[in-house]
Amino acid sequence: MADCIRALAIDAVEAAKSGHPGMPMGMADAATALFDGFVKFDAADPRWPDRDRFVLSAGHGSMLLYALLHLTGHAGMGVEQLKQFRQLHSPAAGHPEFGEHPGIETTTGPLGQGLATAVGMAMAERLLAARFGKSLVDHRTWVIASDGDLQEGISHEAASLAGHLALAKLTVLWDDNSISIDGDTALSFTDDTLKRFSAYGWSTRRVDGHDPTAVAAALAWAQRSRRPTLIACRTIIGFSAPSKAGTAGSHGAPLGAAEAEGAKSALGWNHGPFEIPEGLRERWEAVGRRGAGTRRSWLKRLANHPQREEFERAIAGKLPEGWHLPLAALRAQHAEQKPKIATRIASQKALEALVPAIAEMVGGSADLTGSNNTNVKGVASVTPGNFAGRYIHYGVREHGMAAAMNGMALHGGIIPYSGTFLVFSDYMRPAIRLAALMRQRVIHVLTHDSIGLGEDGPTHQPVEHLASFRAMPNVFVFRPGDAMETAECWELAIKRADGPSLLALSRQNLPALRSDAGENRCARGGYVLEEASGPRRATLIATGSELHLAVAARVTLEAEGIGTAVVSLPCWELFALQDASYREDVLGSGLRVGVEALIGFGWDRWLGPEGVFIGMAGFGASAPAEALFKHFGITVEAVVAAVKKRVE
Amino acid sequence: MADCIRALAIDAVEAAKSGHPGMPMGMADAATALFDGFVKFDAADPRWPDRDRFVLSAGHGSMLLYALLHLTGHAGMGVEQLKQFRQLHSPAAGHPEFGEHPGIETTTGPLGQGLATAVGMAMAERLLAARFGKSLVDHRTWVIASDGDLQEGISHEAASLAGHLALAKLTVLWDDNSISIDGDTALSFTDDTLKRFSAYGWSTRRVDGHDPTAVAAALAWAQRSRRPTLIACRTIIGFSAPSKAGTAGSHGAPLGAAEAEGAKSALGWNHGPFEIPEGLRERWEAVGRRGAGTRRSWLKRLANHPQREEFERAIAGKLPEGWHLPLAALRAQHAEQKPKIATRIASQKALEALVPAIAEMVGGSADLTGSNNTNVKGVASVTPGNFAGRYIHYGVREHGMAAAMNGMALHGGIIPYSGTFLVFSDYMRPAIRLAALMRQRVIHVLTHDSIGLGEDGPTHQPVEHLASFRAMPNVFVFRPGDAMETAECWELAIKRADGPSLLALSRQNLPALRSDAGENRCARGGYVLEEASGPRRATLIATGSELHLAVAARVTLEAEGIGTAVVSLPCWELFALQDASYREDVLGSGLRVGVEALIGFGWDRWLGPEGVFIGMAGFGASAPAEALFKHFGITVEAVVAAVKKRVE
Repeated sequence: MADCIRALAIDAVEAAKSGHPGMPMGMADAATALFDGFVKFDAADPRWPDRDRFVLSAGHGSMLLYALLHLTGHAGMGVEQLKQFRQLHSPAAGHPEFGEHPGIETTTGPLGQGLATAVGMAMAERLLAARFGKSLVDHRTWVIASDGDLQEGISHEAASLAGHLALAKLTVLWDDNSISIDGDTALSFTDDTLKRFSAYGWSTRRVDGHDPTAVAAALAWAQRSRRPTLIACRTIIGFSAPSKAGTAGSHGAPLGAAEAEGAKSALGWNHGPFEIPEGLRERWEAVGRRGAGTRRSWLKRLANHPQREEFERAIAGKLPEGWHLPLAALRAQHAEQKPKIATRIASQKALEALVPAIAEMVGGSADLTGSNNTNVKGVASVTPGNFAGRYIHYGVREHGMAAAMNGMALHGGIIPYSGTFLVFSDYMRPAIRLAALMRQRVIHVLTHDSIGLGEDGPTHQPVEHLASFRAMPNVFVFRPGDAMETAECWELAIKRADGPSLLALSRQNLPALRSDAGENRCARGGYVLEEASGPRRATLIATGSELHLAVAARVTLEAEGIGTAVVSLPCWELFALQDASYREDVLGSGLRVGVEALIGFGWDRWLGPEGVFIGMAGFGASAPAEALFKHFGITVEAVVAAVKKRVE
Repeated sequence: MADCIRALAIDAVEAAKSGHPGMPMGMADAATALFDGFVKFDAADPRWPDRDRFVLSAGHGSMLLYALLHLTGHAGMGVEQLKQFRQLHSPAAGHPEFGEHPGIETTTGPLGQGLATAVGMAMAERLLAARFGKSLVDHRTWVIASDGDLQEGISHEAASLAGHLALAKLTVLWDDNSISIDGDTALSFTDDTLKRFSAYGWSTRRVDGHDPTAVAAALAWAQRSRRPTLIACRTIIGFSAPSKAGTAGSHGAPLGAAEAEGAKSALGWNHGPFEIPEGLRERWEAVGRRGAGTRRSWLKRLANHPQREEFERAIAGKLPEGWHLPLAALRAQHAEQKPKIATRIASQKALEALVPAIAEMVGGSADLTGSNNTNVKGVASVTPGNFAGRYIHYGVREHGMAAAMNGMALHGGIIPYSGTFLVFSDYMRPAIRLAALMRQRVIHVLTHDSIGLGEDGPTHQPVEHLASFRAMPNVFVFRPGDAMETAECWELAIKRADGPSLLALSRQNLPALRSDAGENRCARGGYVLEEASGPRRATLIATGSELHLAVAARVTLEAEGIGTAVVSLPCWELFALQDASYREDVLGSGLRVGVEALIGFGWDRWLGPEGVFIGMAGFGASAPAEALFKHFGITVEAVVAAVKKRVE
């Protein structure tokens, strides 16, 4: 049976003239043992909520996954699709892409991400089991990981977190083939990986990856473990290739006709390209049907379950009825009370309205809970023994946190949100990119969003981070300017089901600028906060903590007879989606001045060639916040002067 | 003696009303043992090349470092400076900032970075010892790291690499205080850290961090080790604070007057704020002079050393005479032969000219040597036993690689360059940011720089990465368009001594577009590659692999009578430094069309409101490169059509 995988991998890579045959050929035996006897799934419904999750962290070996989907009889992964491996519009893309086929649980390829995402899936399973009970939620998460996955730093964060949380239903099969692209892993790597994972609280075992019985025994052992398990499968990369087996030469390029032929003949495989003999096909399709009965029983249990509707709603990613009412009440309260608070505090207030109303929200922070204000009173923390909580102490593991959140969102039934400082979004960037690529609803609370954090200095002061994420496709970057806007942006982030949202929030207090609570004005991304009293000669465009500077500057300018409007631009991506005439009306035809205590990169789009930007031109410094705003010339006076210089 | 550190930390944080007293109070005993008996330094010359390096990876405890610099008698860290802790223009910034005081070896604060940077320093020591001998280069690297440092993923990459390379002269003192910001580390962390480091090939030991004799014994043991060493120092955070000791309450905020008073009285410390009694001051200043004799002996050895000039030149970061001649010859050859090669291959050719000529260049790749083309024939690899090589197999450890490169550059005597795919620059971003902040000469070779890499698909296709780095201060982003430009950009990157350079290079072959080898035309960042034959009506502005599309489009447009120029814009940062009239002359007053197979974020600056951008609007896809360029409409035809639509 394993040779079917090998043959298909060889054929598809040869047909594409591009790809990675070595890994599927090496791990075919272990993967066969895994699917033949252990993975709970039903090819008839690859989105069955209680299926086991299988993550191919070593995404370059994508043909292993496509071969498994094909052989087990999944619709949409026929021979035609395999023949189109790595071609435009094929579901069999170069690396597994979430959304291309329902059997692909997550996008993998950037090493370490699959493993860390799987940790999030295993967390989601525990969280939902605590909420809905074992009769609806009781499945495992299986990962195949490569040497490279385990060399990446994120593997440390993910494995350490999984060990801490004792995610017993998580099993990683490590393709321990001692080969990486540069050659033997000994060139760069001498870790004792089993010892390392044991130090994280994992159970570990080593097997011959080409001995299906030994692999099956290890998998059965893993099922009994009370800790996450790592099974090191000793394999030969490119197994059966006459000259390239066991070498980096089989890793990332087609074998070539002669070598491919030789490999097949070493396997005794006499069938044509993409051809699977009937007997083997039947055995594989039986594997694909193995879980059908289990699924039917589960469906019956679901039908009679008292939480059925709630479960289905949560899994579908639909928000509960009335979820926004407490938030609407909060907005009304803000309109009345006009609180002068930091937007990170305003975010906490929004969370106090949202989290009790939306049971699938699961929060956390990378060890900055008190600074990010991500906790909500009365919401318990998740601990190793108890997943009834909804708040996760992720530790100082930003990257692992973001990837785990992707896994929770992908699993379904969870809306994860995080907290860290905006400057440390850099650590999470590869995982946020995958959230954007996969269009997952994850929400990152990123506080201390400018030099306004003060004394901690330039290592902690983001200046380029918003620009760097505004450049990333599918990400919504919100930077609200007061408590009202913060509530509005939270509402938009929660409603956004098809991509990640980042909330950049201030450490320092900000005055309330809005007293209307009706329309969510942030929904259009940008709007006129204050219109000029006479003809508009200048427009001050600001975000976040600089919005109040613009408002104050307008007062002075208006007093001097210069008609000035203030535009709030909390979400560029939403503003860009508005029609051009709305945007032009908002931005106005007069002088445009942008105010943001960050690098101006990207502002030209809104300011035009005659516009002026008041913000940062480089890194920040260590000093109290007020001293910094003055030092860097981001003040009311500077805005007033910039306008007067050009308008008078 | 340790209490001097504690008292100064308490006083400075109280004076600043901001800061982190807990860590210096907890690690004062261990740090005193370290400096009193082990760190080789002479306060009279903090830049002495053969000094031991001390890295405070737990940068939030910056007062520990400032107190040590102050007490040991370093100029420029007097009481006045300590009183200005965390104030504008003070060298005693919130976190240690490289450049603020010569005794600060590196900027720390973002957790994990200091440790990983120290690994690079220890590598640099070995590399320079191999080059210049033990009589000139024989020093150790000491690190104080926190729980957070060891939770970060980068600690895995760095420690694994250090273990692999058997960096015996690297010692990490782990402030094992079981407290992080959220509270007890047990909230999120149950690693057996000693076992973990032992799995990396480190020697480990645990001591009472408040027992100076035990710490000293462990440090002596570390000096004898043949492996890197981790010493877990069990400490009490905020040691001596009556109610806050041992709690997160002492971590990141002033103790408050009463608690500060109580701490001092618990220590029996009866001196005024910032006051050090004479006897203790003398003992500490003796520590600062302890290495003076050793330094004088070293200076004598240097004076008589046959490689003296070469050593001094390398340490000063000056390039050897005639370094550019082989590169000039290569450029002349390109002008003549007009090779049609990928810019990654052109980069290899540049390296073949540079590496033999510049002995301090040390290259490497994160396990993509054959793809990044970063190796040079005849240059040996570094192996655990042999640092005579100049090529490092970093393994799949992009982040650790970038941080180690920072450490090598900071150490001095090395010009490090790396290789990985451009898309994985995301993994390195926090370390590249520090290189930019510290203005270090590190060069990153980032290949496979667009959808032009083809089948590997969107996980491997950078679209937003150049924009994200163009937004980062002090970084030069180069995207050369052919072999000649690649050689020119390499020349500029090597010459740039005050900041990091990124080279974005193509996987696919590109035609030669230049036949002039005289002036380095990339030096101005952008230039007119082809002028319009008649009056210029349109300007096509392109970078990298799209430059030849612009050249081809120009041919068609000119043939149709539309005067069209082509501008190459390989380095925006250099172009932005030119005077406005040069920039306007280059960009022209007619229609401007930008062509870059990346996201257009940031292009408005060059194109203006009437300009057109032809590039990507979202993530890429998996398919052969030509199919992708066509699919995404980045073609000669599209450029021609865009111009004709607007100009005719």
